[in-house]
Amino acid sequence: MNPKEILSHLQGIVGPAYVLNSPEDLATYAYDGTAGISGAAPLAIVQPASTEEVAAIVRFAYENSLVVVARGSGTGLSGGSTAIEDCIILQTNRMNQILEIDAVNLTALVEPGVITADLDMEAAKQKLFYPPDPGSMKISTMGGNVAENSGGLRCFKYGVTEDYLMGLEVVLHDGRVLWTGGKTKKDVAGYNLKKLFASSEGTLGIITKILVRLIPRPPAISTLVAYFDDVAKAGECVTAMVAEGIIPCTVEFLDNVVIRTVDEYANLGLDLDAAALLLVQTDGHPAVVEEEAVQIEEICKRLGAREVKRAKDAAEGEQLATARRAAFASLARVSPTTVLEDASVPRSELATMLLFIQEVAQRYDLRIGTFGHAGDGNLHPTVLIDERNEDEMHRMHKAFEEIFSKAIELGGTVTGEHGVGYAKRDYLPQMLGETGMDLTRKIKSTLDPGGNLNPGKLLELERT
Amino acid sequence: MNPKEILSHLQGIVGPAYVLNSPEDLATYAYDGTAGISGAAPLAIVQPASTEEVAAIVRFAYENSLVVVARGSGTGLSGGSTAIEDCIILQTNRMNQILEIDAVNLTALVEPGVITADLDMEAAKQKLFYPPDPGSMKISTMGGNVAENSGGLRCFKYGVTEDYLMGLEVVLHDGRVLWTGGKTKKDVAGYNLKKLFASSEGTLGIITKILVRLIPRPPAISTLVAYFDDVAKAGECVTAMVAEGIIPCTVEFLDNVVIRTVDEYANLGLDLDAAALLLVQTDGHPAVVEEEAVQIEEICKRLGAREVKRAKDAAEGEQLATARRAAFASLARVSPTTVLEDASVPRSELATMLLFIQEVAQRYDLRIGTFGHAGDGNLHPTVLIDERNEDEMHRMHKAFEEIFSKAIELGGTVTGEHGVGYAKRDYLPQMLGETGMDLTRKIKSTLDPGGNLNPGKLLELERT
Repeated sequence: MNPKEILSHLQGIVGPAYVLNSPEDLATYAYDGTAGISGAAPLAIVQPASTEEVAAIVRFAYENSLVVVARGSGTGLSGGSTAIEDCIILQTNRMNQILEIDAVNLTALVEPGVITADLDMEAAKQKLFYPPDPGSMKISTMGGNVAENSGGLRCFKYGVTEDYLMGLEVVLHDGRVLWTGGKTKKDVAGYNLKKLFASSEGTLGIITKILVRLIPRPPAISTLVAYFDDVAKAGECVTAMVAEGIIPCTVEFLDNVVIRTVDEYANLGLDLDAAALLLVQTDGHPAVVEEEAVQIEEICKRLGAREVKRAKDAAEGEQLATARRAAFASLARVSPTTVLEDASVPRSELATMLLFIQEVAQRYDLRIGTFGHAGDGNLHPTVLIDERNEDEMHRMHKAFEEIFSKAIELGGTVTGEHGVGYAKRDYLPQMLGETGMDLTRKIKSTLDPGGNLNPGKLLELERT
Repeated sequence: MNPKEILSHLQGIVGPAYVLNSPEDLATYAYDGTAGISGAAPLAIVQPASTEEVAAIVRFAYENSLVVVARGSGTGLSGGSTAIEDCIILQTNRMNQILEIDAVNLTALVEPGVITADLDMEAAKQKLFYPPDPGSMKISTMGGNVAENSGGLRCFKYGVTEDYLMGLEVVLHDGRVLWTGGKTKKDVAGYNLKKLFASSEGTLGIITKILVRLIPRPPAISTLVAYFDDVAKAGECVTAMVAEGIIPCTVEFLDNVVIRTVDEYANLGLDLDAAALLLVQTDGHPAVVEEEAVQIEEICKRLGAREVKRAKDAAEGEQLATARRAAFASLARVSPTTVLEDASVPRSELATMLLFIQEVAQRYDLRIGTFGHAGDGNLHPTVLIDERNEDEMHRMHKAFEEIFSKAIELGGTVTGEHGVGYAKRDYLPQMLGETGMDLTRKIKSTLDPGGNLNPGKLLELERT
């Protein structure tokens, strides 16, 4: 089938207005949020409005051996949604309805194009809470969140996307539609298919409906900022909180590079000389929040914080948290290329990893700013470079090779929340081992025997 | 290979003392905790002491097309661990070491034969908590809990076994050993293999090590008992608690049949005329527990409870909770055969389901006692019969057919926490649909191509 016939067929499914193929569009969709990784031009971008349209597109692709790449807002940071040459980009943004908030069963049913923050705002109207909050939550979609099993800032206390996943509607490789899961928290009828599709990065099926669990909204929150003279002390504070039975909802770490960049960007009057900053939030019952905030302040001071400031109210707290969310944007502003990574280590290895990253930055003469989710040991070492500088790019790759190997050595992972995509594909065998890779390949071949769903992402496999 | 050679080979792997094949043993292992379901006599029961021994047994079975059925304490309630004719029962009870409690990373690494309650007791020594608490927790093993993704009483607030699963060591069908997961809460490197093995009921691999998440132990708990004149009111109380933002750790329901049976057994002075009893426990910070207990009492009274009693201290509360745990044993005592089921419905459908079960019991002239986890909509209608009475058995099967269909119709599941095994196998197609069954078969064929791991359980598939 020639390209013109393919376009015409796709237009027949979704309507001509929803098949994009101008040169500008084709160029744009070669990229997602990942710096330093570009795909090729797709054949077209198709924007279906319903499960039926998604199924028709996927079936058509299957019958004609065309590649389909699912995409939401394209905020991914591992190259998972970049186009592959002549592929169909299946963009789910038009499927953006919150179909139900069920306050009795504490669930929400949404389409994949719903913006993460919009779901939480809608839940809030009924005093409910959707906790997963990836940094990109104001633009990322729920479909992307499930496909990547997104984490976020509140993971330390509340867990990641899959922890809230109760059901999925998925279009399989050949266009069949599967519903799996339901509104009962306990359900052991058969294999755990929904968790298999979560974090499968568009390689096993296309998500068309998502049922998530909600929880009662915590009525109070308190925010603290603690400054430290050395990064190891900040790491020790996290351990000390856990030892006293405190699990804050957020414990974010910023090193000196990031403190300075964020402050330049958001003008918050941060302490620019501190080696590290911890942003700690505790939420829940007002009495408990007050008690924990006092304890956290004491712990930070006891372990040598040079200063601890407590936000005077929720608004000031929100401002500080927003500043942390701006870390990536602020770093992106100060260099032509910003390579953000997400190696994670067990909490106990946080200080070791932070010092290792500093040492690697020096050794490879790179400017690395590190921020991240200290409670989870999930760090974002971010290299500020210029991708036109080949030597610098080479040093960056070498530095990350060492950082990823160190993460594995310390019992961590090469990706805590960004996914494998293209960016971590070459590290996956080291991470999973031969047997793990064999199972991964077999699952992919079984669920997508034609190999036309996001091929080459997560793992490389011959297409049949 | 003849039976004698097989036994000799197995003895070579684990030592002669750990291969059982007396007629008594062979007869015993045809059964597990499931009434009305018996397997056949196994060839032998083998009790390995290490991953290496498990791998050697499984590899030997694979190479000789022998069937392997994994088993812990045999408390399962769906026939998942009953022997299959001439199979090798691979019993993991000797692998019962708690290998590590890591108080910094809040994890525990255990062998599959560790008793669930023992893990929680060990965690408690460090003020930590392993929440999943299946009714059988004082005898069930962690390997069985993961294989069945066991629920329990505290699921309403704390979730089920898979919610605590961080890593697994699994012996695959051919004897290869896979490690998947780790101590980082965030890890999206590859497909979610650990969650696939959880609830796979021994049909995809044999679990040899388990890494679970622990949480800080809640310092306070309060227990209330509320009596109702009709079962629907009890259901409404649960909904009302949720509407006020209260998620108790436990909300257990007992109907009149079970109230009487438990009281006869444990002599607790329960109100024998009540149509329903709710046992509610709230745990956490002492101030919050106190506040919630008052609110729960108010809600129950407002919604028409005939009496609400609050346990005067933790000991009295524990006594009441233990009584609830004795529901199954007390029912088992009063009839020759006790068929305990676990259909689940969304919380909003709880009252509808309770009334439907009562109606079915009348229509089929059966004595059904219903208890269960009201917070989760996870009910245990229990038929008290005599399996020698063919007519009664026939009526029991017809009644459960209706109950399972109703559960599916109400958006629930045919099994909330017991698993599919033999008991629910025939209902699985109705539950999963054609596409879901197709994926289930394909995953089984891919991960166990020889079909020698617990064949016939969960689904029926031709062995190759």
